[in-house]
Amino acid sequence: MIFFKPSSFCIKFRSVLRIFLLFGNITSWIVGAMTLPTKTLQWLLANKPTDLPDLSGSNSTFKLETKPLPTLEADQVLVRTLYMSNDPAQRGWISAHVKHDRLYVPPVPLNTPMRARSIASVLSSTSSSFKEGDKVVANTGWSEYAICDAKDVQPIQSVPGMSDTHFLGALGLTGLTAYYGLIHIAQCAPEDTVIVSGAAGATGSMVVQIAKHIVCCKRVVGIAGESEKCRWVESLDADVCIDCKTSPEKFKKALLAATRDYASVYFDNVGGKILDLCLTRMKRHDRIAACGAVSNYNTSSPTALKNYFEVISMRLEIRGFIIFDFLAMEGGKKVKEALGVLREAISNGKVKVGDENETIVETSWEKVPNVWMRLFEGGNQGKLITKVV
Amino acid sequence: MIFFKPSSFCIKFRSVLRIFLLFGNITSWIVGAMTLPTKTLQWLLANKPTDLPDLSGSNSTFKLETKPLPTLEADQVLVRTLYMSNDPAQRGWISAHVKHDRLYVPPVPLNTPMRARSIASVLSSTSSSFKEGDKVVANTGWSEYAICDAKDVQPIQSVPGMSDTHFLGALGLTGLTAYYGLIHIAQCAPEDTVIVSGAAGATGSMVVQIAKHIVCCKRVVGIAGESEKCRWVESLDADVCIDCKTSPEKFKKALLAATRDYASVYFDNVGGKILDLCLTRMKRHDRIAACGAVSNYNTSSPTALKNYFEVISMRLEIRGFIIFDFLAMEGGKKVKEALGVLREAISNGKVKVGDENETIVETSWEKVPNVWMRLFEGGNQGKLITKVV
Repeated sequence: MIFFKPSSFCIKFRSVLRIFLLFGNITSWIVGAMTLPTKTLQWLLANKPTDLPDLSGSNSTFKLETKPLPTLEADQVLVRTLYMSNDPAQRGWISAHVKHDRLYVPPVPLNTPMRARSIASVLSSTSSSFKEGDKVVANTGWSEYAICDAKDVQPIQSVPGMSDTHFLGALGLTGLTAYYGLIHIAQCAPEDTVIVSGAAGATGSMVVQIAKHIVCCKRVVGIAGESEKCRWVESLDADVCIDCKTSPEKFKKALLAATRDYASVYFDNVGGKILDLCLTRMKRHDRIAACGAVSNYNTSSPTALKNYFEVISMRLEIRGFIIFDFLAMEGGKKVKEALGVLREAISNGKVKVGDENETIVETSWEKVPNVWMRLFEGGNQGKLITKVV
Repeated sequence: MIFFKPSSFCIKFRSVLRIFLLFGNITSWIVGAMTLPTKTLQWLLANKPTDLPDLSGSNSTFKLETKPLPTLEADQVLVRTLYMSNDPAQRGWISAHVKHDRLYVPPVPLNTPMRARSIASVLSSTSSSFKEGDKVVANTGWSEYAICDAKDVQPIQSVPGMSDTHFLGALGLTGLTAYYGLIHIAQCAPEDTVIVSGAAGATGSMVVQIAKHIVCCKRVVGIAGESEKCRWVESLDADVCIDCKTSPEKFKKALLAATRDYASVYFDNVGGKILDLCLTRMKRHDRIAACGAVSNYNTSSPTALKNYFEVISMRLEIRGFIIFDFLAMEGGKKVKEALGVLREAISNGKVKVGDENETIVETSWEKVPNVWMRLFEGGNQGKLITKVV
């Protein structure tokens, strides 16, 4: 984990806010309004990429601008962004060739802030649900400050001994994606042998732990890039983790050895060549949970699935899924259930949420896109989080 | 349909057999045994192809030989091959890169007869279930005569007004594949809009008819190669059939126009580029029945699925299937049920099994592989059948 202390500016700013609160709501509002930010630094989407996003050229994907903040309306909060979640899914939202009605969320329009989920601090609120100083999870985008509708903001109930940033990871959409994909989509059970690609990533490392310690699967085989990450995945109790960044022959040989009796579930975070190879390692009539295809997000010439016929000959099911369906399931009941299970597994040590499960990169606003790009360079272990100072 | 009268040899041969039968079983056996063939012409697998099978070069995929016929043992039949079924699936059984345990049947070993299903005539039988002169469906392979275990042979109960060859098509594994894939795998229902690729092929043309007249689907969109075939698919009551052999732009435009409200089921016989485009035409949470991928059977460099991410973003399910699972289901009860439904639909004219549903090619034994290769050249309308003279 790369983590520096919060900036002194941030501490001073909060102290001032706390003093205001002593004078009651009206005083706080009057004085607060005077000192609250009226503009914000913001990364806007400048060009929709077809291949690898361009961070410096004339056709740069993003542009940093200072924008005025609108006035707070009823049932809204003004927040300051503290930590930003970096997710491969964001790449899909800005793709040049994606159509509006073929995504699970609308694509990010040009000249609007890059969309991102954050841990933020409430500076001002017109909602009875939030007060100044509250820590929340909000869709701030790549924006220093943001105004959000209160209904779209979730409060954080800090857990002693656990960093709030885990509300973007293990106890956020990442943990829920792993849980939903493995348990509801792949219908994983104790007798399963599970392969997990991107096993050292945010979702993958949660899948490994849920498979091993919540479902209690017979065998969990991780796939990750680089030997050091593989050892970390094994420290999360994967039975074995295979390095996919060695030579293709070595990788294939090692995966074959690790799945001699084949696998019944493949939780796919990466697509492409690894999906192609995993098609040959599945048992008949078994299940692939298609969560992501990060290996092909930055190319308009994706890898062919040479082994696609195995889908037919082995009667495989590939099931695509998106976490938002889970959030809506039974009016949110299923999510509460899942969060309960995850919290318990964290509290009794079955699921680890230590510092090593996050890569927190402290950076200036100028480098926000560069941190995000680390996702596609394998530059993270566990959840990749940007802390802007 | 290309169809010539049965060869005069064949007619004379049967007449002689019938005369033998007048003398009772023993006489028939003694005289029959004297005249029964002791050797057979046979196409053997000579080389396993990686790409397009080679029919003439030094590395020829098949070789024609004359082989001795073994002696008939208990519970066996000696048959003469009349009509041979040509199926894209046969390509998978001889592929150079397919592994023994990754197919639904063992691959064809080198120097053994090319596997094929046929309509055959029983010349001699040691089984109480069959007698000389019976018409049967048998796994003869590309062999003039064959000896088969009686348990692997199915009798044909001829249907008045319907050619026996339909026991290889509409009332054979082809019809059952269409039925199983559409009804059990895709779980097709009246509210569905169904896309069918390879719609002028043996399976596809049955899928179109079952979707339209047995399931009574809202809309059926066929995809076939060449305008004339498309008109034929429309004559089977597809709402529209799109020609995939025009320019890619025209094809795409026509498919988009034909699926303005998207499709809920895609019955895929072809894989490759057409599957790729169809991924973009599916509704959320809907179903792809993966039956075949003929477009990529003859290449070691298959087409990439550029739109694979739609599987995830649209939460699609791709379900591979093989007809053999259906045959075994509930001890064959499900197959009987399906055949009952298909027979009824044929008898009341809902499913057409006229001459135009078959392409019967009469040929010499020397050209058997060439007829089979027509499958990959779009050289058939409905079921492609070889009649050898």
